[in-house]
Amino acid sequence: MKIGFIGLGIMGRPMAGHVIRGGHALHIYSRGTPPQELVEAGAVVCGSPREVAERSDAVITMVPDTPDVEAVVFGPDGIAEGLGHGKILIDMSSISPMATKKFARMLAERGCEWIDAPVSGGDVGARNATLSIMAGSTPAAFERVKPVLELMGRNITLVGSAGDGQTAKVANQIIVALTLEAVAEALVFASKAGADPMRVRRALMGGFASSRILEVHGERMIERNFEPGFRVELHQKDLNLALQSARELQMSLPNTAATQELFNASKAHGGGRLDHSAIVKTLELMAGHEIGGGAAKVSQT
Amino acid sequence: MKIGFIGLGIMGRPMAGHVIRGGHALHIYSRGTPPQELVEAGAVVCGSPREVAERSDAVITMVPDTPDVEAVVFGPDGIAEGLGHGKILIDMSSISPMATKKFARMLAERGCEWIDAPVSGGDVGARNATLSIMAGSTPAAFERVKPVLELMGRNITLVGSAGDGQTAKVANQIIVALTLEAVAEALVFASKAGADPMRVRRALMGGFASSRILEVHGERMIERNFEPGFRVELHQKDLNLALQSARELQMSLPNTAATQELFNASKAHGGGRLDHSAIVKTLELMAGHEIGGGAAKVSQT
Repeated sequence: MKIGFIGLGIMGRPMAGHVIRGGHALHIYSRGTPPQELVEAGAVVCGSPREVAERSDAVITMVPDTPDVEAVVFGPDGIAEGLGHGKILIDMSSISPMATKKFARMLAERGCEWIDAPVSGGDVGARNATLSIMAGSTPAAFERVKPVLELMGRNITLVGSAGDGQTAKVANQIIVALTLEAVAEALVFASKAGADPMRVRRALMGGFASSRILEVHGERMIERNFEPGFRVELHQKDLNLALQSARELQMSLPNTAATQELFNASKAHGGGRLDHSAIVKTLELMAGHEIGGGAAKVSQT
Repeated sequence: MKIGFIGLGIMGRPMAGHVIRGGHALHIYSRGTPPQELVEAGAVVCGSPREVAERSDAVITMVPDTPDVEAVVFGPDGIAEGLGHGKILIDMSSISPMATKKFARMLAERGCEWIDAPVSGGDVGARNATLSIMAGSTPAAFERVKPVLELMGRNITLVGSAGDGQTAKVANQIIVALTLEAVAEALVFASKAGADPMRVRRALMGGFASSRILEVHGERMIERNFEPGFRVELHQKDLNLALQSARELQMSLPNTAATQELFNASKAHGGGRLDHSAIVKTLELMAGHEIGGGAAKVSQT
């Protein structure tokens, strides 16, 4: 298949590498210097997103936010201008579900398909081709591109129609953030009450409190290992998307809002680039107590 | 071993049954009529908690709240008056960790040991002898009573010294409540955004959002199965204990406080006796949208 790829950042670059090594012709566009390793592997550098679309059967976008997707697809010299009938746009960015549905309708008017396929698993998952991919699409389009997605991830689910992949991603980020916060409240409580947080964590692992977050990030919090992982400032961006979307949908996400405030406080104290499990530091500051003993300190990183 | 048991309610009654069927002599005290099946099985009915303590090597208490434990142990004709040197008090109620530490010191002055051994698993776990038990005690006392605890549960952990079992229980209830709330926010969001919540739940199960709560209670929320399980009003009581304890410890549990308010709202709308997964109904009211479709309604049960 002839694949286009736009958005060759920390995530997109290794993902594009998997696609070309998977035997697909790759067309790329980059505002800066195109990544050396992709060019050496045979990627064709194009002069605009439009040209990428003209020369590809399917174009993958992996850019930071909703306005970036809108610009690269529907802006001047954008993908939409070059995307002929029957071609597919695969947006792997994490953006607004509602905007995605609008974009999909706009592409459908040109006879093209939109697949939203946001990922989780971070840059490690991108490098190791172990991303989880939550897709929204028609079943037919999904089947056509599935072999390409399988080069980049391994837990690939068609959640529903266009937009539903982004909805699932938002739901994922809500649950992960709020579970992190829950584990942090519980462990700071346990530690300040004088118990050994590691033994409390272990006692809770068998029952209804058990989760991947308690297992992995609970341990991080106790061992003070805040190397990312997934950064506080990226989770902030995702919760912002959740809260914006909730406002559009006219609904309330009370604990998501409160947790966003705790991430904001985490960033205020220099934690933006730490792993998101560092939300525990904000609760420690509020408790005047750090897990494992000392008084909580503001940590500059 | 000669075991005393005080607090023969919905939990205590089946638990006492397991103890006597396990071959231990059982001494009970009850303000009302003593349970027929225990008397038939050979339990000795005593005239006061003091008498129960006099005739037992270890006394188990399973009563609703901190003041109830204080009254039955340290009140007139209470357990402490009958508990001679070397005897053990096993408090399986869910009460304040800080009060527990004080009670343990008071018993220690009389040469007696305090073991806090709160449980999770509800009345189903009590009946089936599958409770999880989080104990705080000296290792020696724990080893002495462990065979008795094993008659009532199967996931039995010595978390630390006296009070630490209660601390672990509070931590457990914080995590369970906040994870329930997280799953509820995510599924109401997904449903109102137009996705199928069951498919979203399934897509999320493999990744960092996965938890026992997403698995079991996420399904309950989608299938509208709010038969308890564990009741909203009992979880309210436990979060109240968490918030009181946090105030005593001088620390902040922001999302526990917010979630308690959502349980309060759930009770206000007639949900107090529903399973705690019914917290989703409060979020549905706030969203004007019920998972699966309709506008959210106030449900009287």
